[in-house]
Amino acid sequence: MSLGVEPLVEARIGAHAYPVHLGPGLVDRLGELAAPRVEGGAVLLVWDGGVPGLPARAQASLAAAGLRVVPAGVAPGERSKTLGELERLCRLAASAGVRRRDAVVALGGGVVGDLAGFVAASYQRGIGLVHVPTTLLAMVDSAIGGKTGVDLPEGKNYVGAIWQPELVVMDTDALASLPARELAAGFVEVVKYGLLDGEDLFELVEAWPSLPGPAERLPGLVRRCVEHKLRIVGEDERDLGVRATLNLGHTVGHGIEAGGGYDRYLHGEAVGLGLLAALRLSEEALGLDPAWRERTAAVLARHGLPLGLSPEVPTAAILDAMGRDKKADGRALNMVLLEAPGRPRIRQDPPQARVVAAIEELR
Amino acid sequence: MSLGVEPLVEARIGAHAYPVHLGPGLVDRLGELAAPRVEGGAVLLVWDGGVPGLPARAQASLAAAGLRVVPAGVAPGERSKTLGELERLCRLAASAGVRRRDAVVALGGGVVGDLAGFVAASYQRGIGLVHVPTTLLAMVDSAIGGKTGVDLPEGKNYVGAIWQPELVVMDTDALASLPARELAAGFVEVVKYGLLDGEDLFELVEAWPSLPGPAERLPGLVRRCVEHKLRIVGEDERDLGVRATLNLGHTVGHGIEAGGGYDRYLHGEAVGLGLLAALRLSEEALGLDPAWRERTAAVLARHGLPLGLSPEVPTAAILDAMGRDKKADGRALNMVLLEAPGRPRIRQDPPQARVVAAIEELR
Repeated sequence: MSLGVEPLVEARIGAHAYPVHLGPGLVDRLGELAAPRVEGGAVLLVWDGGVPGLPARAQASLAAAGLRVVPAGVAPGERSKTLGELERLCRLAASAGVRRRDAVVALGGGVVGDLAGFVAASYQRGIGLVHVPTTLLAMVDSAIGGKTGVDLPEGKNYVGAIWQPELVVMDTDALASLPARELAAGFVEVVKYGLLDGEDLFELVEAWPSLPGPAERLPGLVRRCVEHKLRIVGEDERDLGVRATLNLGHTVGHGIEAGGGYDRYLHGEAVGLGLLAALRLSEEALGLDPAWRERTAAVLARHGLPLGLSPEVPTAAILDAMGRDKKADGRALNMVLLEAPGRPRIRQDPPQARVVAAIEELR
Repeated sequence: MSLGVEPLVEARIGAHAYPVHLGPGLVDRLGELAAPRVEGGAVLLVWDGGVPGLPARAQASLAAAGLRVVPAGVAPGERSKTLGELERLCRLAASAGVRRRDAVVALGGGVVGDLAGFVAASYQRGIGLVHVPTTLLAMVDSAIGGKTGVDLPEGKNYVGAIWQPELVVMDTDALASLPARELAAGFVEVVKYGLLDGEDLFELVEAWPSLPGPAERLPGLVRRCVEHKLRIVGEDERDLGVRATLNLGHTVGHGIEAGGGYDRYLHGEAVGLGLLAALRLSEEALGLDPAWRERTAAVLARHGLPLGLSPEVPTAAILDAMGRDKKADGRALNMVLLEAPGRPRIRQDPPQARVVAAIEELR
């Protein structure tokens, strides 16, 4: 059977290969794409209702392809990323007779991907996984690379697994229904890839006119981001070395996100500010041309992302949260800096005074 | 530093290699063996108090080698294999600052190995693991091969991971303090390896005089079993093919164990009866020489293991439990049969009348 659907990317992590599809309306072809990859014939479909109508269409497509669907909705938001939810979903799968050669389908954003991915990694010691990311952040970042997990009160993503999917299906129509603020926040990860990958991708990102942007060019943009991430993950799946470069902007970004009580800034908005701080530090430490920070700020501004840090998020709170991250990681406070676009460097424990100055410059 | 401790086996599963040590008093050398393999310098020491005194000696040895020990006792028995215990142990690790380059030390029998192994597999998406099995069953079977997990009300080991250790340390002194009944039950797995590996190992097992048996010959016996299992796991780590042969005796054995309400027979005792049933079926289906069943029964009898099935465990209950296993696995009821020692064959859905007859012959 000819599917008429060429994958966007053929991912390869070690010995494991899987296709990444992207296109409009692909959720209606999910069944035909997934069925050949689910030997057992049943799927646990996990979703959180972020995009109305999508779960029903996914379920219909899976069923039409002959798959038995066990529906498993979860409450939206980070509060679903718990071991309690893992247990509930695994018990649901068990009582519905989901078996070792079946699969989990994760339909949603980062939270659903992380939670359902961990179900796939651990149910009966690991079954198949199909990611159907519905946010820009999930498409270019969280659905790629195999990180799954849930939170503990002591920290985010403290229990989980590295578990690669059998298939990723991205329906670009899902992006059209996202709130503009969320789309922009997801675009910050795209900006990050531009800085990490090099001038060529950065210029493509810089010229991106609107969000989600021109449908005919969107696949090319997402593909570049996905390829960058897959290349890095292929070199360092377990995140012991070069994969840390993907945290560009995230060290200060996490601090800002946590310092704002997780409700002032969306993750991506905080990372955008973190990118500016990292570029500022890179100018001092590595001689990065300040033009890159100006151009990055212009990209963020074009899509309505914040460039200034609220006075209600004090620097001390940001530094506190960064210190907690550092303690949790147990290593030095690693920051990703840039010599130039495409040339990231990991710098251990940058001088605190410089970090403070870079944060203050966001005021 | 010369340790003066040669590993019993250098295990290799795919790209991952680790040593398996065995000897008297090795728990007092645990620290020097483990320290070079725990980059982060801290360990979560999980034990269940099965062998009195051992946790304190392990802790002292680890501390003397410069490792920071976070002690984590769990209640003995299968009831500790829950996601609730996983969460408690992960939270304990998090609040004690256990980090990605640290490790879990699992000191105990199968329950501790399964639970603590899953903590190691999932805490911060996977940290180091050192198995210190203290029962014969754990030494030859559960600490080898990487299976970890916890139970759900719906079934045993329904949530878990395949996670290989960095090191296995077996202290044969621990065996001396085990109850005779438990030692004998563990020896059933050794008998199983004899049948699976071939006449040579079977004859070694057959001639074994007592339990735990001659100290100078014990390493050789355990090594043969561990090598058999590692060879099979190396071919089929994820248990999708040949690894199923390790279930010889376990299909009917699980049925007997469950049919007896999990308190009439120890796991190994039930598997011993299951071995006899599997050999009986093998005679009919594959022409196995009946002498092997007689010799196996004689080995079991020598070590005081049951040869007859209690009338209080009805055949219907055994078949019921086997049916549940079949449903859970979602495939045919696979039984491992033998053409001859060393030549296992997997037979799908053997005729139920024959299975019933083989069980009845145990009465």
